[in-house]
Amino acid sequence: MGAMTLANVMVTPLARIETAGGDVLHAMKQTDAGYAGFGEAYFSWVDAGAVKAWKRHARMTMNLVVPIGQVRFIFCLDGGREFRVEEIGTDRYARITVPAGIWFGFQGLAAPRSLVLNLASIPHDPHEIERRSLADISYGWN
Amino acid sequence: MGAMTLANVMVTPLARIETAGGDVLHAMKQTDAGYAGFGEAYFSWVDAGAVKAWKRHARMTMNLVVPIGQVRFIFCLDGGREFRVEEIGTDRYARITVPAGIWFGFQGLAAPRSLVLNLASIPHDPHEIERRSLADISYGWN
Repeated sequence: MGAMTLANVMVTPLARIETAGGDVLHAMKQTDAGYAGFGEAYFSWVDAGAVKAWKRHARMTMNLVVPIGQVRFIFCLDGGREFRVEEIGTDRYARITVPAGIWFGFQGLAAPRSLVLNLASIPHDPHEIERRSLADISYGWN
Repeated sequence: MGAMTLANVMVTPLARIETAGGDVLHAMKQTDAGYAGFGEAYFSWVDAGAVKAWKRHARMTMNLVVPIGQVRFIFCLDGGREFRVEEIGTDRYARITVPAGIWFGFQGLAAPRSLVLNLASIPHDPHEIERRSLADISYGWN
């Protein structure tokens, strides 16, 4: 793998299938581009307006899906001044694949809250997570 | 593996972790009892009162989590008259592991609708799914 860039963050549109009694929403198949193994699946609620930032994984590939609400994800490189912004949720139903090595934060855009599913390539391991405070990376959150 | 019985359906309580900006909800780790490999993850919405039934998988192990709402799952064996009933959702946050070979149906209990995540051991394959109509298995749905 070459040097990590923001172009390595991948957005993949997902199908929503109309079904009697309630729709079916695709999330990920083992054969999909971006699948990097299954370590853990967990949900994060994010309240409207709330910001969760910043984190960087040393080893985890994240695959993020938002079945409820709408979430803005911000990505940047270490020391970089460039940001990549991707919004996914019910208004744009898609999966974001985030390789290890990229700083990220996210903000809930929908009231009352949005739900993020992370299909993570490794189980949660605090030793592979770096954190910075919101103020440490100067992105203009609204 | 011995003969499949309804006791092979496994319910595992899951953690909900209070977090600033929105809670984190566990779903599954690769080391958890009941994990049988990752084939596909997908969501099913189920409207309040709606019933989706009946299906049986020949090969898929399902791991079911309900992060929003409340869902009643009904399980039975082929030709059996016995039913196992498990309700999970925000009132009882847990995962249900369903081995292959068991008939199942489910009903939304919460308004306006509930969300089911299936962490499936194989990708969707119509050839390994058997279906029966609601009336073919006489369970007393309300």
